[in-house]
Amino acid sequence: MASKRQPLPQIWVLHGPNLNLLGQRETDIYGREDLKSINSTLGQAGKAAGYRVVCRQSNHEGELVDWVQQAHKKAVGILLNGAAYTHTSVALRDAIAAGDCPCVEVHLSNVYKREPFRHGSFLAPVCLGVVSGLGAASYTAALHGLLSHLSRYDDT
Amino acid sequence: MASKRQPLPQIWVLHGPNLNLLGQRETDIYGREDLKSINSTLGQAGKAAGYRVVCRQSNHEGELVDWVQQAHKKAVGILLNGAAYTHTSVALRDAIAAGDCPCVEVHLSNVYKREPFRHGSFLAPVCLGVVSGLGAASYTAALHGLLSHLSRYDDT
Amino acid sequence: MASKRQPLPQIWVLHGPNLNLLGQRETDIYGREDLKSINSTLGQAGKAAGYRVVCRQSNHEGELVDWVQQAHKKAVGILLNGAAYTHTSVALRDAIAAGDCPCVEVHLSNVYKREPFRHGSFLAPVCLGVVSGLGAASYTAALHGLLSHLSRYDDT
Amino acid sequence: MASKRQPLPQIWVLHGPNLNLLGQRETDIYGREDLKSINSTLGQAGKAAGYRVVCRQSNHEGELVDWVQQAHKKAVGILLNGAAYTHTSVALRDAIAAGDCPCVEVHLSNVYKREPFRHGSFLAPVCLGVVSGLGAASYTAALHGLLSHLSRYDDT
Amino acid sequence: MASKRQPLPQIWVLHGPNLNLLGQRETDIYGREDLKSINSTLGQAGKAAGYRVVCRQSNHEGELVDWVQQAHKKAVGILLNGAAYTHTSVALRDAIAAGDCPCVEVHLSNVYKREPFRHGSFLAPVCLGVVSGLGAASYTAALHGLLSHLSRYDDT
Amino acid sequence: MASKRQPLPQIWVLHGPNLNLLGQRETDIYGREDLKSINSTLGQAGKAAGYRVVCRQSNHEGELVDWVQQAHKKAVGILLNGAAYTHTSVALRDAIAAGDCPCVEVHLSNVYKREPFRHGSFLAPVCLGVVSGLGAASYTAALHGLLSHLSRYDDT
Amino acid sequence: MASKRQPLPQIWVLHGPNLNLLGQRETDIYGREDLKSINSTLGQAGKAAGYRVVCRQSNHEGELVDWVQQAHKKAVGILLNGAAYTHTSVALRDAIAAGDCPCVEVHLSNVYKREPFRHGSFLAPVCLGVVSGLGAASYTAALHGLLSHLSRYDDT
Amino acid sequence: MASKRQPLPQIWVLHGPNLNLLGQRETDIYGREDLKSINSTLGQAGKAAGYRVVCRQSNHEGELVDWVQQAHKKAVGILLNGAAYTHTSVALRDAIAAGDCPCVEVHLSNVYKREPFRHGSFLAPVCLGVVSGLGAASYTAALHGLLSHLSRYDDT
Amino acid sequence: MASKRQPLPQIWVLHGPNLNLLGQRETDIYGREDLKSINSTLGQAGKAAGYRVVCRQSNHEGELVDWVQQAHKKAVGILLNGAAYTHTSVALRDAIAAGDCPCVEVHLSNVYKREPFRHGSFLAPVCLGVVSGLGAASYTAALHGLLSHLSRYDDT
Amino acid sequence: MASKRQPLPQIWVLHGPNLNLLGQRETDIYGREDLKSINSTLGQAGKAAGYRVVCRQSNHEGELVDWVQQAHKKAVGILLNGAAYTHTSVALRDAIAAGDCPCVEVHLSNVYKREPFRHGSFLAPVCLGVVSGLGAASYTAALHGLLSHLSRYDDT
Amino acid sequence: MASKRQPLPQIWVLHGPNLNLLGQRETDIYGREDLKSINSTLGQAGKAAGYRVVCRQSNHEGELVDWVQQAHKKAVGILLNGAAYTHTSVALRDAIAAGDCPCVEVHLSNVYKREPFRHGSFLAPVCLGVVSGLGAASYTAALHGLLSHLSRYDDT
Amino acid sequence: MASKRQPLPQIWVLHGPNLNLLGQRETDIYGREDLKSINSTLGQAGKAAGYRVVCRQSNHEGELVDWVQQAHKKAVGILLNGAAYTHTSVALRDAIAAGDCPCVEVHLSNVYKREPFRHGSFLAPVCLGVVSGLGAASYTAALHGLLSHLSRYDDT
Repeated sequence: MASKRQPLPQIWVLHGPNLNLLGQRETDIYGREDLKSINSTLGQAGKAAGYRVVCRQSNHEGELVDWVQQAHKKAVGILLNGAAYTHTSVALRDAIAAGDCPCVEVHLSNVYKREPFRHGSFLAPVCLGVVSGLGAASYTAALHGLLSHLSRYDDT
Repeated sequence: MASKRQPLPQIWVLHGPNLNLLGQRETDIYGREDLKSINSTLGQAGKAAGYRVVCRQSNHEGELVDWVQQAHKKAVGILLNGAAYTHTSVALRDAIAAGDCPCVEVHLSNVYKREPFRHGSFLAPVCLGVVSGLGAASYTAALHGLLSHLSRYDDT
Repeated sequence: MASKRQPLPQIWVLHGPNLNLLGQRETDIYGREDLKSINSTLGQAGKAAGYRVVCRQSNHEGELVDWVQQAHKKAVGILLNGAAYTHTSVALRDAIAAGDCPCVEVHLSNVYKREPFRHGSFLAPVCLGVVSGLGAASYTAALHGLLSHLSRYDDT
Repeated sequence: MASKRQPLPQIWVLHGPNLNLLGQRETDIYGREDLKSINSTLGQAGKAAGYRVVCRQSNHEGELVDWVQQAHKKAVGILLNGAAYTHTSVALRDAIAAGDCPCVEVHLSNVYKREPFRHGSFLAPVCLGVVSGLGAASYTAALHGLLSHLSRYDDT
Repeated sequence: MASKRQPLPQIWVLHGPNLNLLGQRETDIYGREDLKSINSTLGQAGKAAGYRVVCRQSNHEGELVDWVQQAHKKAVGILLNGAAYTHTSVALRDAIAAGDCPCVEVHLSNVYKREPFRHGSFLAPVCLGVVSGLGAASYTAALHGLLSHLSRYDDT
Repeated sequence: MASKRQPLPQIWVLHGPNLNLLGQRETDIYGREDLKSINSTLGQAGKAAGYRVVCRQSNHEGELVDWVQQAHKKAVGILLNGAAYTHTSVALRDAIAAGDCPCVEVHLSNVYKREPFRHGSFLAPVCLGVVSGLGAASYTAALHGLLSHLSRYDDT
Repeated sequence: MASKRQPLPQIWVLHGPNLNLLGQRETDIYGREDLKSINSTLGQAGKAAGYRVVCRQSNHEGELVDWVQQAHKKAVGILLNGAAYTHTSVALRDAIAAGDCPCVEVHLSNVYKREPFRHGSFLAPVCLGVVSGLGAASYTAALHGLLSHLSRYDDT
Repeated sequence: MASKRQPLPQIWVLHGPNLNLLGQRETDIYGREDLKSINSTLGQAGKAAGYRVVCRQSNHEGELVDWVQQAHKKAVGILLNGAAYTHTSVALRDAIAAGDCPCVEVHLSNVYKREPFRHGSFLAPVCLGVVSGLGAASYTAALHGLLSHLSRYDDT
Repeated sequence: MASKRQPLPQIWVLHGPNLNLLGQRETDIYGREDLKSINSTLGQAGKAAGYRVVCRQSNHEGELVDWVQQAHKKAVGILLNGAAYTHTSVALRDAIAAGDCPCVEVHLSNVYKREPFRHGSFLAPVCLGVVSGLGAASYTAALHGLLSHLSRYDDT
Repeated sequence: MASKRQPLPQIWVLHGPNLNLLGQRETDIYGREDLKSINSTLGQAGKAAGYRVVCRQSNHEGELVDWVQQAHKKAVGILLNGAAYTHTSVALRDAIAAGDCPCVEVHLSNVYKREPFRHGSFLAPVCLGVVSGLGAASYTAALHGLLSHLSRYDDT
Repeated sequence: MASKRQPLPQIWVLHGPNLNLLGQRETDIYGREDLKSINSTLGQAGKAAGYRVVCRQSNHEGELVDWVQQAHKKAVGILLNGAAYTHTSVALRDAIAAGDCPCVEVHLSNVYKREPFRHGSFLAPVCLGVVSGLGAASYTAALHGLLSHLSRYDDT
Repeated sequence: MASKRQPLPQIWVLHGPNLNLLGQRETDIYGREDLKSINSTLGQAGKAAGYRVVCRQSNHEGELVDWVQQAHKKAVGILLNGAAYTHTSVALRDAIAAGDCPCVEVHLSNVYKREPFRHGSFLAPVCLGVVSGLGAASYTAALHGLLSHLSRYDDT
């Protein structure tokens, strides 16, 4: 007799503007790994921990806001590389703050080595934490932290 | 006939001022895990990856400067939670910049949720990257990133 | 013989990002009334005064810009709760300034009690006025002010 | 046998410096309606809602402080056009914060279209909300908001 | 025997938010010429120099980011009037910096005569140069400069 | 019988401090073309459009002020590369503002890529427009814009 | 038969806080002449020019506001030494701006030699001009300037 | 034969705006002791040391200025809790500086824990010293310091 | 039969850098009393109130951090003259905040009369209160305040 | 037998850049009187008081520096309208400070009504005083003040 | 038979505005030694090291720019005391940067003890180094440093 | 008969944090000469002038404070390269200011070419002067200046 399988809890990975170009351009800043490869690594790491990882990228602030709102309903955690919108989007901040789903801010590059306007983040104060400068490993380190957080608070 | 064992490469973990109080005080900000426990977790994770993890804590800026200088000579990587000195110590920054050993800045709490003077870091621009806000997992996530970095560049 | 009825002049009510979540989230800041209820109240109040009230919400800055441009052509007045875009969107400001249709800026919460970056408004200097902090009544108070303004200048 | 009538709850309307000149001067900024007329309109609107509206004007910061203190004892709500003191008086702010009586800040002109020093308000953060730029209708819109607030919390 | 014609190299002209209203509104600031006319002039000037000029306008930051990314693949040069996004969009800056295609920033009005927030540009530091204040001639002057630049570096 | 020829209307091109070194020094910033060559190109372009182009260079702020005053009397337009004085000279600004002769500010390099103190211009707000970053083509583009402006307003 | 004498036009001289102590205290900053002596000199100089000079001093901002309002009705010119209120009173500024009576700001000491908070003046931008640093002669110099202004515009 | 008793030297205690509400309101910030009780404690402590303590409170800046001027004539020392005027009144500062009578600034609450605009004091630089944050004991501690100062300098 | 005496509760007095020079140097700023004398006075005053006063001085930030940590364990209250570290040490601030022991910040001189960088204090916001400018009496006044605080909360 | 006449003491009047254009340009800001007329008025007023008035104008900062140096040797007082150099020239400030000759800063227009960069003056802190906004009367008022100052200190 | 002597390599010493007054004025700041004496000392010290020292002084920014340009052609090193122009002249900075000749910035006084606007230097970032505060010895110390630099790089 | 030799007066040379690494690291910034070599050169130069040069290095701020205090007692002059502490240590500043021993601030690199936080110095305003950017010659140039200063004031 067949048992219905419980769907895996989801973790959403949202990539902001220009990250679709990853691996093709400015590889001295962002590294040579492309988004597909990062997503695949995250998918496997998530799966190993019992989560389904859903990855999306957009150049549109409004679309990212839509997705964060949806993530609050469908996911148990968010990894968000807001890219440029990190430094300019109060809308994205409000979307993160509007739900209970913990969010970790991720940056490939060390933003503190770059232009001053990249030092501030509208998102960080409403996120669980921030990981930056570790290249593609920023995402896996952030996933590590998110999973650790979830395991502490979600003890079903 | 006994062969001489090659000593493991070292990773130094340096904890700044007041971190000796970890787990006893302000647990709402810093969590309940104490320094000994964090060091032990890091030691095991390091060992599993083939590194010897050396942990030290000091309330003295000058002593931390001394240790960073020594780490550049003895270690292949540094995890540094500069705590309060993160925001005030140019001396520590200069010590980090004075060697080739990659350093990851670590914070237990999300500093961007706290007082404005904690938002700036003298250390971040000379570090590989920064991990903050993930509690004790900030250290393990940072170790993860450091190991990932070392594996990319040290292919002996 | 039946005369063709003149369509009512329109007032457009534009709600910015994350306001679709109204009543569900952060009710301590934004109150328990949802957008549908606010729109309905405004519709009735407008109708009583001889206006058709058209309500829209978007998380997309560009869409709000499109709508403000359209409102300048189709409506006689605008109520705009730019939400997060209030503080970051020069595009929205330029759209408001690009037409003659008077616009009142509305906020549910008292933005001056919140983070400093919410104290500035790119929109206010090109609006007729601003109403904030009165909860759902901010909208009706703003409608009151807009109608009063229209009655002074439109004396057909 | 005559029953003693319960006195109406009071709303105090406090006008700050130079508002005694209203309607005589700088009518392009402040409009042509004078203070007497505004007070009369507010009195009627208040009465219709079951409140006695008490109106006062002073050029003296200290006198406005005295009145706010008294309002906290005698009234259930305050409309305060602090005029110039809005931007300079911490004393007025402290007086508002020293009682439970809700206060709505009112401005005839849109202060955000004027000199930068008029953009900040010491009063706004301790008020319920702010209405500005709607001319004389700013007062009635503010009264509307105050009544709406009172009806939500005072359900005798 | 018919030879297959080599397609002309492309120059993309991207117009930002509210520029669709050109010639209809605020003609004292932006002049009376509409976008169609500007595009037509640019098309002819480009053609005369051996280029195909492709013109697009959007009120959406994300769409402009998409187009800049495409331009890097399809065009040899960009004229970009970011309008309001000039002053607020790091995303657009990152898109420009993410490719090799030279970009000239264009403004119809002299932005230095206007509000202080229009004096800064996120785009200028990653563009070849900036032309502002010459009305519709800003575009043709910028095209002139772009062609001069291309002729110096593209000597096939 | 010979008719007396009407002298051509003049355009003055004023070059500021250190521009006499053009083509010899810092060619990575300013290009390899020297001032003589630029002046010659402008002279020909001006002549083709029916103007006599008069070019001068000085390292002295006061001399540039004198020349701008004279240009207001003798010329119909000015191209001014104030160089360093762009960022420090209120005297030059006042001289430009003291006459009706339209002035276009020119920079060889893209000043927005350079030190912050080069981002501000005392001259720009009293000029017709600004062209920067196009190398020697900045001058010809600016001339193009000036001629376009003159043709719109001078229809003798 | 006796003709009724036309009363002299009035000039009001308003002295702000602590000026009642003049000549007694801090004579190194403010000089040894007391207010009575200054008023007497001004009275004679005014009389000689055909004006009645009315002098008042107050430590109360509100009283100074009242007097400026009255001066607009009764006088043809004001000399105002706002003293400390120069740097803090928007109310006084608004009172000056609320009438047509020209006002000259006066300071005994050279405020630019003193603390930075004395360098800014809320009053200066709405006054005819400012005289400071000439000791008691600041008042007579200001009167000179005011009379010169009145003679130019009042030519009955 | 009876000797005429020498009157006690006076210490004036001046309380600024809203301090009349002490003990009734915001007791979490200001404590439960009212002004009468504080004055009484100070009176006894002063008497024990051979001084007559005179206490006054006003919401009016001008009145406080008047009193400080009088204190310079009648008293040998001042305790001044300027409250809100501490942060806004240059007039009060000038009054303190205009005499030789030493003045100690007093605050019940620790102003450095509160809003940034309470961190600055116009009065402190012209006072002997500052005591804040000790509740009602701030006054007695300040009296202690004042007496200690007087005993060092007044040795008649 | 002798009873074992309960040790007195301790108050720690910590003096920061350069205070060992007290009484020898810059006596115009810091007075002529040396540290030994201040400590002795405090010891007697503490003893009279039933406390043992423990005094220490260090030029080393780290040592002061160590001592504050120890004081939290051994003492019931701290008087801390952080001297130069007041303005630069986040580490000292964190040490104070890391325990429950109330701390009063002390300064001999009136820091508000000195250089601007001495006006800010990292310590004040986490202390009970601040006493400054009363010379050696600053310490006794602070002790007075601390004892008053302890007597209110420790009523064994 | 003829006696040799003592030469009159000199007062130098130095006019800065663009003041040679006075009366011809921007008459709404600077008035219609030209420099010749102002100089003539000053010459007569000076002569009447027993001084020879020497007037000079230059657009060159260095020349003005030369003249101020000479004035310190030949004159007993200076009237200086630094015009644009008021706001930018430290050299002129140093020249004024380098001698004992009192200098009064003069402005025709009320600089506080103009651009913010005209609000600061490098010269004012080393001058006796400042007169601005009184048109041509600024010079005569300043002369009045200078003469008053000289009469107080030069009583030979 | 006489051999033709190789001319000595030159070091140019350029003195800025008001330094011609050295030794006569403000000797408390600048010392009693005059420029002639300083030049003579430098001439001897240079000669001893095998260099011809050429000294010039000007109050004119443009002249100093001219000389720096010439020095780049004729000299092997520059000592430049820009005096006031240090803090205001971008033109002088550009002239220094436009050549390869190393330049040492010199100040007689310790500029960091003086007004804040003297703390910044436009020249320092393009100079080899800076010497200030050593009086006339600043020049000889700077010469020492320049010679040391030249000896390291010029090994003919 | 043997005479007892007078010990040489001492000059202390204090090197701050990370200077122990000199010559090993970042030789592009700090040069190749190590501390030992610099000390040796200084020792010889000092000896030649009749002084004993004592050299010390520490990474500890407190230790440097201790040494400066001792130097005031044992030495006649100090050369201090505070390195990182130059920009952060008020304690070191206070130590310098606490004695009469003249101190010259030294930097190997030209700090004005580096990060903005290195442009400010807490030490400079209490030092005799500053020498920077001349490499190892900065020390010898500073010694030269110190000796020149001592010879002027110490004429035993």
